[in-house]
Order: sequence, then structure tokens, then C-alpha cells
Amino acid sequence: LGRSVRCNLQIAVRCASTARGDLLKPSDSLIDRHIGPSESEIAEMLAVVGYKSLDEFMEATVPDTIKNNRALSMGEHQCESEALDNLRAIAQKNKILRSHIGMGYYDTITPGTILRNVLENPAWYTSYTPYQAEVSQGRMESLLNYQTMVKDLTAMDLANASLLDEGTAAAEAMSMCLSINPKAKRFFVSDTCHPQSLAVIRQRAEPLGVEVVVADHRDYDFENGPDLCGAIVQYPASDGRVDNMTELSGKIKSNAKGKCKLVVATDLLALAKLQPPGEFGADIALGSAQRFGVPMGYGGPHAAFFAVSGGSNIVRKMPGRIMGISVDADGNPGIRLTLQTREQHIRRDKATSNVCTAQALLANIAAMYGIYHGPEGIRRIADRTHACAATARLGLEKLGYDVDQGAIFDTIRVRTDKAEELAAKGVEAGFNMRVFEDGLGLSFDETTTSEHLNEIFGVFGHELAVDELLAAADLTMGPMERTSPILTNPVFNSHHSEMAMQRYIFKLADRDISLTRSMIPLGSCTMKLNATCEMIPVTWPEFGRMHPFAPLDQAAGYQAMIQELSDDLCNITGFAGITLQPNSGAQGEYTGLLAIREYHRANGDDHRKICLIPSSAHGTNPASASMSGMKVVVVKSSSNGDVDMEDLKAKVEKHSENLGALMITYPSTHGVYEETIVDVCKLIHDHGGQVYMDGANMNAQVGYASPGEIGADVCHLNLHKTFCIPHGGGGPGVGPIGVGAHLIPYLPSHPVIPTGGDHPLGPISAAPWGSASILPITYMYIKTMGAEGLKKGTAVAVLNANYMATRLSKSFPILYTGANGRNAHEFILNINPLKTKTGISEKDIAKRLMDYGFHAPTMSWPAVGTLMVEPTESEYKAEIDRYCTALESIRAEIQDVEDGIFPADDNPLVNAPHSLSKIVQEEWDHPYSREQAAFPLPFVKAAKFWPSARVNDEFGDRNLICSCPPMESYDELEIELPPTEEKVKQKN
Amino acid sequence: LGRSVRCNLQIAVRCASTARGDLLKPSDSLIDRHIGPSESEIAEMLAVVGYKSLDEFMEATVPDTIKNNRALSMGEHQCESEALDNLRAIAQKNKILRSHIGMGYYDTITPGTILRNVLENPAWYTSYTPYQAEVSQGRMESLLNYQTMVKDLTAMDLANASLLDEGTAAAEAMSMCLSINPKAKRFFVSDTCHPQSLAVIRQRAEPLGVEVVVADHRDYDFENGPDLCGAIVQYPASDGRVDNMTELSGKIKSNAKGKCKLVVATDLLALAKLQPPGEFGADIALGSAQRFGVPMGYGGPHAAFFAVSGGSNIVRKMPGRIMGISVDADGNPGIRLTLQTREQHIRRDKATSNVCTAQALLANIAAMYGIYHGPEGIRRIADRTHACAATARLGLEKLGYDVDQGAIFDTIRVRTDKAEELAAKGVEAGFNMRVFEDGLGLSFDETTTSEHLNEIFGVFGHELAVDELLAAADLTMGPMERTSPILTNPVFNSHHSEMAMQRYIFKLADRDISLTRSMIPLGSCTMKLNATCEMIPVTWPEFGRMHPFAPLDQAAGYQAMIQELSDDLCNITGFAGITLQPNSGAQGEYTGLLAIREYHRANGDDHRKICLIPSSAHGTNPASASMSGMKVVVVKSSSNGDVDMEDLKAKVEKHSENLGALMITYPSTHGVYEETIVDVCKLIHDHGGQVYMDGANMNAQVGYASPGEIGADVCHLNLHKTFCIPHGGGGPGVGPIGVGAHLIPYLPSHPVIPTGGDHPLGPISAAPWGSASILPITYMYIKTMGAEGLKKGTAVAVLNANYMATRLSKSFPILYTGANGRNAHEFILNINPLKTKTGISEKDIAKRLMDYGFHAPTMSWPAVGTLMVEPTESEYKAEIDRYCTALESIRAEIQDVEDGIFPADDNPLVNAPHSLSKIVQEEWDHPYSREQAAFPLPFVKAAKFWPSARVNDEFGDRNLICSCPPMESYDELEIELPPTEEKVKQKN
Repeated sequence: LGRSVRCNLQIAVRCASTARGDLLKPSDSLIDRHIGPSESEIAEMLAVVGYKSLDEFMEATVPDTIKNNRALSMGEHQCESEALDNLRAIAQKNKILRSHIGMGYYDTITPGTILRNVLENPAWYTSYTPYQAEVSQGRMESLLNYQTMVKDLTAMDLANASLLDEGTAAAEAMSMCLSINPKAKRFFVSDTCHPQSLAVIRQRAEPLGVEVVVADHRDYDFENGPDLCGAIVQYPASDGRVDNMTELSGKIKSNAKGKCKLVVATDLLALAKLQPPGEFGADIALGSAQRFGVPMGYGGPHAAFFAVSGGSNIVRKMPGRIMGISVDADGNPGIRLTLQTREQHIRRDKATSNVCTAQALLANIAAMYGIYHGPEGIRRIADRTHACAATARLGLEKLGYDVDQGAIFDTIRVRTDKAEELAAKGVEAGFNMRVFEDGLGLSFDETTTSEHLNEIFGVFGHELAVDELLAAADLTMGPMERTSPILTNPVFNSHHSEMAMQRYIFKLADRDISLTRSMIPLGSCTMKLNATCEMIPVTWPEFGRMHPFAPLDQAAGYQAMIQELSDDLCNITGFAGITLQPNSGAQGEYTGLLAIREYHRANGDDHRKICLIPSSAHGTNPASASMSGMKVVVVKSSSNGDVDMEDLKAKVEKHSENLGALMITYPSTHGVYEETIVDVCKLIHDHGGQVYMDGANMNAQVGYASPGEIGADVCHLNLHKTFCIPHGGGGPGVGPIGVGAHLIPYLPSHPVIPTGGDHPLGPISAAPWGSASILPITYMYIKTMGAEGLKKGTAVAVLNANYMATRLSKSFPILYTGANGRNAHEFILNINPLKTKTGISEKDIAKRLMDYGFHAPTMSWPAVGTLMVEPTESEYKAEIDRYCTALESIRAEIQDVEDGIFPADDNPLVNAPHSLSKIVQEEWDHPYSREQAAFPLPFVKAAKFWPSARVNDEFGDRNLICSCPPMESYDELEIELPPTEEKVKQKN
Repeated sequence: LGRSVRCNLQIAVRCASTARGDLLKPSDSLIDRHIGPSESEIAEMLAVVGYKSLDEFMEATVPDTIKNNRALSMGEHQCESEALDNLRAIAQKNKILRSHIGMGYYDTITPGTILRNVLENPAWYTSYTPYQAEVSQGRMESLLNYQTMVKDLTAMDLANASLLDEGTAAAEAMSMCLSINPKAKRFFVSDTCHPQSLAVIRQRAEPLGVEVVVADHRDYDFENGPDLCGAIVQYPASDGRVDNMTELSGKIKSNAKGKCKLVVATDLLALAKLQPPGEFGADIALGSAQRFGVPMGYGGPHAAFFAVSGGSNIVRKMPGRIMGISVDADGNPGIRLTLQTREQHIRRDKATSNVCTAQALLANIAAMYGIYHGPEGIRRIADRTHACAATARLGLEKLGYDVDQGAIFDTIRVRTDKAEELAAKGVEAGFNMRVFEDGLGLSFDETTTSEHLNEIFGVFGHELAVDELLAAADLTMGPMERTSPILTNPVFNSHHSEMAMQRYIFKLADRDISLTRSMIPLGSCTMKLNATCEMIPVTWPEFGRMHPFAPLDQAAGYQAMIQELSDDLCNITGFAGITLQPNSGAQGEYTGLLAIREYHRANGDDHRKICLIPSSAHGTNPASASMSGMKVVVVKSSSNGDVDMEDLKAKVEKHSENLGALMITYPSTHGVYEETIVDVCKLIHDHGGQVYMDGANMNAQVGYASPGEIGADVCHLNLHKTFCIPHGGGGPGVGPIGVGAHLIPYLPSHPVIPTGGDHPLGPISAAPWGSASILPITYMYIKTMGAEGLKKGTAVAVLNANYMATRLSKSFPILYTGANGRNAHEFILNINPLKTKTGISEKDIAKRLMDYGFHAPTMSWPAVGTLMVEPTESEYKAEIDRYCTALESIRAEIQDVEDGIFPADDNPLVNAPHSLSKIVQEEWDHPYSREQAAFPLPFVKAAKFWPSARVNDEFGDRNLICSCPPMESYDELEIELPPTEEKVKQKN
């Protein structure tokens, strides 16, 4: 090991040196740009922590039992320009054909100002999930716009802030129906549904013991059939047909004494012209918002939408995050995450879903697209899309094809026995179609032009006069034509010029703390640098304009990148195989547990369903275990925060027969390298169980240890934590899983594009490679850091954490440390003793940090009354010191409360954060000055960020307002007077 | 005309309509995005102004005498994606070869975070020249960093905030030397200088009657030669040689009794390794900062640097803008434009330079590059660049070539009689070299790799072992090696990680008002939308990585775009020819006047040197006339603001014999369509003069009238005003001139790449097509707007102005209007009556607008005590109304002063702007509340921007601090106590 770390240090020396042999190396290495502290700062911090070198420090900090003492395989780093050139060459192997495949993915035009100022703007993409409402009002307003847009277009009661993709949204709908009507373990899937949605539903249903009934909804006897918890139809159908939903709705409602829920998978653009699900009795409406300005990107990430109608019962069972308007301490409206008590982090294995993220960045893009175009613009796009389909149908009819299909929106189906032949001719002419057994499907979108139509006619016969066809085409929508107006809220009717749109985008960003302002040291969330060179390829058209179901030979660039990335990730994790399909960490967990389950089954061990989970585990762990049909047994923590080995042994032995798996996070969620991990793995294996490692804390292992070598059988990686995919203000995430060789056969498949193992699971996500378009970020990160850079990153991440812990331990007790008194990459400040003495809570500290311009650390997780801090390797000493100084200053303020200088109910902490409105008020009757409230330290003044006043959580949950009120009413939003600050504090 | 305007309206209708025939048109038209108000808003505004349609309005507003009643030639608009696709196809005709040409242009790596967050970020590129210091502290800090960087690397006393390019900087140096020593009308140019610098100097010298002496400075007898005002040498020489400057300096100082100034054209990267000019007695140092991260872009825009040493006399004669630290009303340091009394807008024809802009955006990029790399990084890049050159030289020597040259930095010269042949082989191998008569030049840069070196060896003979050559190469710098440290200021030693750099970039942007925050209605400056689709091509490598002297056949894409753009601009202006070479409006003026002068000369009319200029003209007009050897005679304005026709006639007749030109702005600088313009042109022509039209106000003509058809012989266009090139925070600008057929022969040439007319002027700029890399912005604008979109833009710009004028006339008198009571695209609010009554000045109003979140209009120009407002067509009604409401609210505040409610010396106006510090202060003893100070209207609170306190202009001029003080001293910057606010006000 010593040798390897010396190598790391040589990198730095090399880059700074004038050693002749290195002179001609390119000068734009990312390593020193990604790693925050300079060599001299590293030395200073080592001195504080008490070590002479990074070598010595890591030698002492990482337990010998887990060190793998090998070099990573990716070799020397590429410089930024070099890696970009190489990746561009790979990208250019993708052959971008025009897509008429459809099936939920359509080409779209991302408006320039949204592309540049949202998707490519770090102020938007580097922000975190808006758990701290007061520093997140901008992106929450945008997500509220998204919810409003979905609610409006679907005409449902309430929409969430997005789900992962249409397939998982459909599966979530099934789970939700089941949870409403748990006795009816049967779910109907119309054969009009996209095949990938059906496959995801099937996979999700199986562990839950739900029977999936697939049939033509026109023929199925809902009235007399067995009880269904729900039924899903695609509207318009996957092949383009627009059925009469009013009729169907009545039929479905006749099932299960009216308890069968109607789920409608639909399309936002189509709903500009078609009667919305909310108007014909749908209980749930879902779909993809991709075509609202988000590139196809070979499958994702995109925002799925999910909306429900019905009473508060159905609302409270809706999966995913929901933005809601509450009230802040100034009495103004304040947006916050609402109804969180539904979620996995509260309900754990009782939760009906393990969803703990959204596709915030993509939902924001879709919302901005809706705002930019407004009702007229969206209708115009819908009209032209429909006109393309209608014109194409008429043309093909004239060319002698059978295109009889009734009402359509954007997709036509051509019956022909020459499907393969015509498809091949299409490819030659530059476009892809969907191939059915008995014909072809053609979908149209915003980018289709009349030249495209003529190219199609050419392939099917000969060119035609498109203008004449258009003039003659049937442009009526039939009985399902929408009559209600769309996008009526003022926000969709105010920002249509680019100048107005741009200002709105910037105005919202100004209200948020992102990494562009200050460090966000969220324990377990690894908010590291998302380097520009990593982000640049994401918006290359070679990656953006690829349909996920394009023939593999057209996606050679993607395939090459995916292969290389998979190899690198396998090497880093010490695993034999990997799947990149899961598009969130929780989806990774779920996939890994399913693979374990399949493995046990293949061994005839169906009964091995016990899943041991330490009490400190993330709430998704039990939720995922439960979803995969396992039974959760909790293992205690010992007083030092480690897994309680005695309790573990006892439970392993008790459940030895039925032991399925242990889920364990490493380093522990307490930020400690537990010494016992290897023994733990052995113990589980000895009892026939499998070890699932939660990879949330992989940033403390890369280059030093690996889950595979430690003894795990499967581990998910959070590419959005350790591997530089930005958090996007609350998504996207990517959660691939690495597995041992024995689990490779079970890796998930896909119904359209073959992938996965020999005895694969069904798909976990709608797209074969999940969120493929952001994989270049991780690819670039690994290539530009190289083996030694990655390893040095880990060492500096751990050093930064230990430096902060050392410094802050003088102000707050550190809750847990490892055997040598060191932490891993994060640490926990225990606020409980102070809380007991002064009444000042970890929440007050979190809110007070906002007055200092900082985002709070992770609050009260994994232990109540604590703050968990993770600085990452990308933070430099000056910023780390500023953060420590702020916390020390807050500690002194708490002392003033303890000493009676400030009353317990009127001090800078309980009143935090201090909004601008508050500071400017004429009256100021606090025992501290405005200056102290707003500028508690000199550096704050230099770049003051103004949080909103404290948002009232309880009030928001009691008074659900989850879409934008009309502008007129916004100013005078009728809100019950909030409880006094005192009461809020007591309740929270 | 009526018909054309109806066509305009049809565009809008078409875009919003579902008229079947138009359904398949692409949906992403820029027209409605560029033009701010919607059709219904246009109708509302027309109603306020008193017209029924845009037709009727423009019919009544534009004088019949100037209407050209023809359609523009560019035809129908292309949609955004369509135009981008078309331009990309054109761009791809550029063949990007690696450049070893050198001559002041080098490939460079723009760090990703600077590319995305400065160059591609509208918060940086849409801001205006920082005349309003309190809302411009961010970019002024950056420009101060630039000055500090230049001062540090050159070791000169003081640097300016950049000039247009190295060639014009060299010419400015000559002018400056002449102004210091006006009797010595002789300037020495060393034959080591870049040929384009020499050519620009020659052209600039000729009208001034300065003799240019070109010789080998090693041989020239300075001691005994005739008196020179100055001597310029290139260091390192254009061909790479590094001479002993200490010796040379002594020789030059022996001329003219020590009065001959030493001007050193140099290279910032070389100065990391070479003794800086300030250490061997240079009086002026200049050069290009291009290679500090700014793409070559076929010649520009780049920032030239310019630094001087010596007493206050030399400082006050330095051309260009200078940032200086002054003090603000809170007693804090505040940056501002300093020493403005030197400039053309004050000194008019007495100014020694007509420079009125900088290359702010590019200077900021260069400064950020210096900050990102810091001293170690810059040295590393310099070391490797030098090592490449030394290795190449050794290799070529081994291959038998004569490369004897003494000390070098980045460029080698190879003597060979096979230059052409080898150059052709180089092109085949993928790189360009410089071709001399007796050999080849090869320059190296940040991007050179050892593979590149081997490719070169391959062309010159055969491949060599680069490592061995490197090991054996002579890497010493000889006697000129730099021993002093570089970039010692803390700012260059604090932001080396990408996270730190990104935060610094965002922190500075947060201090500025740009178009991303609110409208900037600067009269005469046309701050319209800079659409994203226009900006996107600028950073395509196909445009960015082209050397300006690359063989023409490699630049087919650029040439095609330039040709098409020139045709369109000719059509718009009604001219027969155009040159895109001038890289600022003032340079355009100068070029146009020179062309007129050549025309007169060719007709034997050398004596026609009288240039008539109305008193209301922009200060650059007389300055440019003076520089082109003309004699300025001022024509009066009549009481209605128009040119005083009687005075004009009198002066034309008086000077009939010697009449050279009239310079006139149209619409007038008073924002009025003067009815007499056609008569004026005829009058001048009748007396043998030529009409130069200042195109600053072209935005009120496009599509309705044209300078050529009105009668002008030449007109410059401000592409950065009318044609959407962003202002960049104070540059770049582009100032092409259109000319009548009779002036085409005189359009400027270039010494390296042939261009221009048959009897051309010398070059005006260093590059043949000036700032070529930003021409795609204008190209995209014209293509995406099309003939009808451009015309509608003009109509809406005029409507917006008249709507505002109508509304605001109730609060402030409008100074001038046209015959029908209408304004053109801008109007003037007369503050003088209020000032007399209340003491509140236009400056107080300008500063108070900042408290409302707005940038002030143009202040006290063209008339003292006024505000000139130009909203442009891109502002939408809501924003325009907000601005009007703010001005109305300010008017009410002034009323309160008038009514004695607020004292004259303590009211929201004289104390404006109110900084955050001031608002938060405990003590508040003003007769108005903090709320009123900070949030005078409800909309202000929603997105409050905090200006700094009022910056003291006088203090800054008295106490010159024009670079960053070291960090330690910054906090306690020793500044004389500022005068009281009262005094400041009196003085200002």
C-alpha cells in the first residue's frame, strides 16, 4: 500500500515539476482540479490530524483487513482535452438515424436558453435534493411548475415531482393499487401498453405475488372477471390507436365492486389534443415527460410523471416526492417537500415504494419547456405532430398500404408482410421504424418535417406531394378530442420571449444554494465536483439523439463506452459483472436483492427470505428488501456505532436456515471503517446467506478496498455520489450493481433490446441501459483521474473529513470513530448534549448555517439529534475552514444561550434563518443586532445569500397545495395564520 | 410599405395559427422569441400610443422621404434548429489543421469551467460597459485582475483593461509616443515585428504625417539617427529570436536626447520565462492575451494588453479604459472606470485615440485563465511550450537543417530553399507552418504534444526519438531569463481547484446587473437579446481553432459565411460593398473616413479635409476624423434637436472648396427621424463632399430605410448593437463599414492574407476579417429573423420606445420628438427642470434606479442633464412597464423633495444606491424607512439585487490604484477619508 500512495503523491509532484521527461505531458490534468486541497494544504491538514504523509495517514486509517493492495486497472489518467477527444471519437461511432420508433421516446428540440442555462448550468445541476427548503425555493418553484403542468394536462387532482421513467412509474402504479386494495392480488395490463412497461410491471409483480393479466382491454370481461386491484391502459396505445376511454373507464369501474383502479399511461403532448384522463375517471395517470425538451439520450434520464385523483387516502399513497406550498415564519408562502411521512425513510419496510429520488433536473427542463411554449406553443407542436402522422397515414394509404387504425395522435401502424425489408430500406434512407410481426410502426415528433415524410414515402413506394396530402388528411381527433383549455396558470403565459425565459431561469437559480455558492457537506451524499469536462459530452447530439431501441449496430459508440465503463467499475468494485440498468441507488438495491433471491431459488433455497439489516441502515434498504419479497430482521448497533456482533451472530444463527441476505453499508452509515466487516461477510456466507453491500459510501473505498474483495456478493454504486454525476437538484441518480460471478446469470434483461444474464430478471428500468446519456460523466471522471488520481481522491476525502472532525471536535462531540480514533470520509456531530442543556436543536443549527451562507449537513440521520458532515475530496482548505469557522461561531452563539445572554426563545438560532424581509423590517426587538443576524462573520458579507424565513413543515402537510395557485390568488393566498414560532419549534 | 408590414403581422399569425398549409413548418422560430412583446401586447401598446396597427404606426413615424419600400433580400426566416444545422454544415467546410504559424496567434485550451461559466454564460456576456460602477463590481474586479496580471507579467507600472488587438495596440503606442513628443514625427519599427502590426502602424501613421522607419534594430544607429518619437521591437521577435533587450534599450534611449520611447510588443506566456519589459526600461509594453485561454477564432476577438511605465504624464496619455479602485459612500473600496477625462467622449477631436471600448469579455477570460493556472501553472505551460520549441529545433538540426537563431521561446526559424514544398507536406500531414522567403517558421503552444513533434520531424525527414531529443535539448533562456517571481497577488494563488474557480466566477457575476436580471435600456447602445442559438456556434471548434493566416482553402466555411453575411449586410444598408475588418464602431468610423480621404485623393482633391460634425455627435466622430487627418468643423443643433439647416448650409458653403465629409447619425442621436436627412445628403454631395453615416442607430432603419438609399456614401454598423453580438461587459464590438461602389476600391487590405479593394488602405485591424469568430452571431440573427422578422423587429423597437415615451411623458418632459410628435427607437427624458427646482440630478435618478433593480439609461448624453432610454424590440411589456413604474415612483420621490417632505440632502435619491451594508446598519436616521430605501416597489423584493454604495469618481482619479492590492493590505487599504456625501454631490 505504501508504494501506491507514494505513487499518488508523485502525480502531484509530476504535475508541478519541471522534471524534463514530463515536460511534454499535456497540461490540463483534471486530478489537481478535482481534488480541492493543494499539496501544501494537504500537508497542513495532515499536520493537524497528526500524520506526516497521506501514506501514513491512510495506512493508519483504513483497516488492514480490507486493504486490497492492488493498483486499479484503468492506468494513467488522460488529460481533459485528451479524454474529450477520445470520447468524442467513441461518440462518433454512434450512427444517429432519425427515429420513428416511438414507444415512449421521441426526438425533441431543447430550447437553447433551457439547454444552456438549465441543463448546462451548474447553478441548476449541482444543487441537492431540496430537503432544506429555505435555500431551495428556486428549484422547488420549478418543480411545482412541473406538478402544475402535469396536473393541468392530465386533469388529475395532484401530481408528484417526477419518477424515474415510464416503466417504473407503471410498476409504482401497480404497487399503489395493491396497497389500496391489498386483497386483490391481480393487475390488468392492456396489450396496448409499451412492452417495456409491461415487462417492468411483471418483474415488480412477481416478488409481491401479484398476478399480471395481459389482454385486449376491448375484449376483456371486467365486469365478470376476478377482482383486480387495478388496470392499466396506454393512451394513445403503444401502436398509436386512440380508443374511447370513456367506455373503457365504465367497464373497468365495474370490476371489484368499483374498487379496481384505472391507471392510464399517457403522453403529455397528446393530451394537448386528447381528452385528459382526469376527465374520464382515471385514478392514476402516468407517463414520460421526455418529449418536453429532454433529449432521448439512449433511454434516459428523463422525468416520468405521476398524477392521481381521489381522496386523501389515494394522495397519501402516491409514491415519490411532492412539492407543496406551506407558509414561512414571515407569513409568506414557502415551498417544501410535503407528505414525507409516506416515504421509505420513515416507513422503511412498511413503505409501498423504495423511491427516494426524483428526476428533478429533467422535470425542471420539461417544466421550463412548457413555460417557454405555453398553451399556444404546446398546441402548435401537438397539432403539427398529429398532422405529420395523419399525412403519413394518408400517403401510405395512397401507396396501397393497410393503415386502418381509427383515431391516432402521433403514431401509425402499417400492416405489411415486408416489415423487415422496409425497415432495412428505412435505415438506408436514414431513419428507424418500429418493427411488428405483422408490420411497422411510425411515430412522429416535433422535429419531423415534410422532407422526412417524403423520405418515408420514398421507402414505401415513391415520393408524394406532401402539401396535397396534408390538405386532404383527416385532422380530426374523433370522440376523444380535448375540449378543455390547457396550461392556464399564469406561469405558462408569461415567459415566451427568450429574454423573459432567461430571466425567469436566472431568477429561480438565484434563490438556491448549489455548489456554485458554497460547499454542501452532506453526509452519505458526496457532493463533490461535477467537472465541466465531464458534463460537456452529455449534450453532444451523438449521445443525445439516440433512441434507446435503435438497432445495436447503430449504437456502437454507446456500446463501447458502456463496456469500458463496466470494466472499470468492475475493477474498482472487485466484481465479476455489472448492470448499468438501475436508474437510482434504490433501484440498484432492489435489483441486487432480486438477483440474490434468484440465486437462492436456482439453488432450491426459495425459503431463504430473511434479510438482516442493521438498525442504522438507510430507509431504502428495508423498503427494497420488502419489495423483493424478503422479510426484514433488524440487527442492533453497539454503543460505538458498529454492528452489534453479538446480536448479529444471534440472529444469523436463529435464521440460519432461512437466511437470505445481509444488507450492510460500508464504511458504516456512521462514517466509520468497521474492522469487523470481513468477519461479518464470512459469518453470513457460512450460514448460506449472501452479502448485499450498500455502496453509498464507496467514496471511502475506491483504490484502497473493494466490496468484492471485502466479501460482498453484490453492491450498488451511486454514480451520482462517488462517480460525479451531479445531483441535479434532486435527481437524476444512477445505481448500477456489481455482482460476483455467481450472480451474473440473474442480471436484468430487457424485452426489446437483449441484455442481461443467462437466466435474467425482467427489466428494472424502462431502458436497457437505464440513464445512458449521463454515463459519459462517470466515464470521463474515471479516465481523467486514472488509477492514481482516483486513489488520491479517496485519501483526500478521508483526510478532509478527519481534518474537519479534528477541528470541530473541540466544539461538538464526534459521535463515532474507528478503532484508531479516526473517521472514514464523513463524521457525525452529536448535538444531543447541547440540545438537552439549551433546547437548541440540530435543526436550529442547520437553519442558522443558512445565515452563514451554507447548506446544512445531513440532519438527524443515521442518528437522531446529529449532523453528519462529508466534505469530499473536492473541497479546498479555505472553504472547509470557512465551514468550520461558521460551526464554531454557531457553537459560541449556543454558549450565549447556555449562559443566559440570549433567551432560549429569542436568539439567532431559533429565529434562523433570517430572511431579507426580516432584516429590513423597521422594528427590531431581538437581543442581537441585525448585523449579527445577517452577517455573523466577515466573509458572509462578501457574498451574502438570502434564505427564505423558516418554512413550516407541519402546516404544509395539513394544508395540501401542490400546484401553483393562479397568479391573482398567489399574493393573497388564503392561509390559516401559522402557529407562533414557539409552537412551530415545539412541534418540529 | 403597408403591404410589407402586413406581411410582418402574418408571420406572427402564421406561427400561432393552425392554418393547415403551415402545419409542417418547424416550430422553433426565433422571431417571436427575439421580439419581446406578444401580438396582444403589441396591440395594447399601439392603443396607448394611438395607432391601430404596426403598419399605421410605422407609416406615420418613419418619414416618407427615407422609406425604401422594398423587401430585404434574405427571404424567409430559418427556424433555430434549421439555421444551426445549415451553419454547422458551413462550419464543417473549415478544415482545422494544427497551427504552427504563430505570428501572435496560438492554440490554447480554454479551461472548461471558464468556457461554460464565462464565455457561454449570459450573466457575463450580456452585461454592459461598467459605466455604472455600483452594479458592475464583479466584472470590474475581473478586469482589475486582468490589469494586475498584465502589470505583473510585464513589470510595468500600470496596465489598461485591454485594447482591440495587438496591431491596433501597436498603432496606439505610436500615437501615444507622438502625443508625448509631437515634434518627432518619426517612429521606428523593428523588422522583428509581426508584419500585420507593421502594416497597421503604417496605415495609422500616414494620415498623421508620421514617417515609419523600418530596420533591423541591431544595426540601426539610434544615437545618431534623426529624432524618433518612439521605437517598437517585438520580444520575442516575430520569427522567434530573443534579443538582448538591455543593450537595445540603452541604444534606443540614446536617441532624441532620451525622449525616444521604447515600445515592446511582447507575449504574456513568454514573460513567464523572460525578463519583463519593465525591468529593462520599456515605456510601453503591449501584445495579445489571446493564448491565455481565448480561442484563435480566425483572428478575434481577443484582448490586447497595453501597459506603461513612467510618470503621471505618460499614464494620462494611455489609451483605453482603466479600472481603478476608489472608495464608496460606505467607506469601502469600490472599483470604477478611472481617468475618463482622457477619453474621446470628453476630448473629442483633441483626443489622441478614438478607442472607446475594450475587449472586456476576452480580457476576463484571459484573467480567469491566469487565476486558474496561477504562477506555477503558467510557468509549467511556458516551460513545456519552450521545451517543445527547443526539442523541435534540436531535432531539425539533427535532420540537417539550419536552425541557428540564438535564444528562443516558442518559435523556431528553419532556413531552407524547400519552404513551399515542406509547407505543402506539412499541410498533408495536418499542420500549417509560417512560410518565409528563405525558410519556415514553427511556433508551439499549450496544445503541442510529442506526437506533434514527431509528425513535424516526419515531414522534414523522418521520425526521431522525441524523449532523447528533449533530454538533450538546451532549455536555458540565455541572458534574458526572468528571475523575478510572477503572479504574486493572492487572487492568482487561491482558485486552482475547479470548485474554487467556479465559485469565484459565480461570485463575481452575482455582483453585476446583466440582461439576465433586468432590462438595460441604454440609449444609443441597443441592449437587445443575444439569443442562445446565435451564441452556440461561437464556441464550435470549427470556428474557434482556425488561425487567421491559415491558407484560404482551409477556411472555406468562414469564407462562405463571411460572403453571405456581407451580402445580407449590403442589402440591409443599401450599399455596394462592405468590409468586416474593423473590430469596433470607432474603428469603422476611422476606416470609413480614410476611404473617403482616399477617394478625394484619387480625384485630385487632397485638400478636401474639412469634416462637418453636428454638435450632438458621439465623441468618437471628431476623434476619428482627427485621426484620419481631417479638420473638424462643428455644426449646430437647432432648438428642436435636429441639425440646424441654416448653420449647415452656411458652413457647407463656406467650406465648399475643401469640404471632405459630413458625419451624421441617423436617426439622430436625439432619437428622432429627422425629415431633412435626404436634403442634407444632397447638399453635401452638391458641394463635393461625402456623407459618412454613423450607424449607431441602425436598429431604427433595418427593413424600412437604408443609409445607402438615404444618400450616405459610407456607414459603419455596430454589429454589437443592432446585430446581436453581446456587449460582453464592455467589448467585444464589431464595426464593419458598408460603402458605395465608388469607395469599394479603398476598402482595407491585409499584408498576409490578401483582401480589400483595388487601391486599398492598409489594414485597420491585425486580422484580415477582424473579429471573425463572432460573426456567426450576426449571421444566425439575420438568417433566423429573415426579411420580415428583421423588419418587424425594427417596428417593435420603435413602438416600445414610443410606448415608454408616451407613458413617461406624464412624469418627465421628453426632450425631442419628430415632426409628428413621435420618437424613433429611443427618447430623451429631460431632467434639467427638476434639477433646477430640487437639486436632484439625472445621476441621482440613475443611482436610485439601482435600488429598484435596474440599470440606468444613458446619462447626460447627447444632452447634459438628461436620460436617454432605448428599450429595443426584445423587451416585453411586463418588463417595460416595471421600468416605467420605477421611474414614476422615482418621480414621486422627487416630488416629496420638492414638497419638502424629504430634505434636499437626505432623501432616497441623493443617498442612492442603498447598499446592503447600509440597510443592515443598526442606526437608521433617514426620513424614510429601510423598506422604502431597499424595496421601494413590491416587485423589487421578489428578486432584490444589491448594488454597492455610490462610488466616488473624483477620489479615484486623484488616487490611482489600478491593480489588485495584496490581500493583506486590501482590508486596510490606506485611503484618504472621502469627502462627505454632500461634497461628493457638489463636485460631481
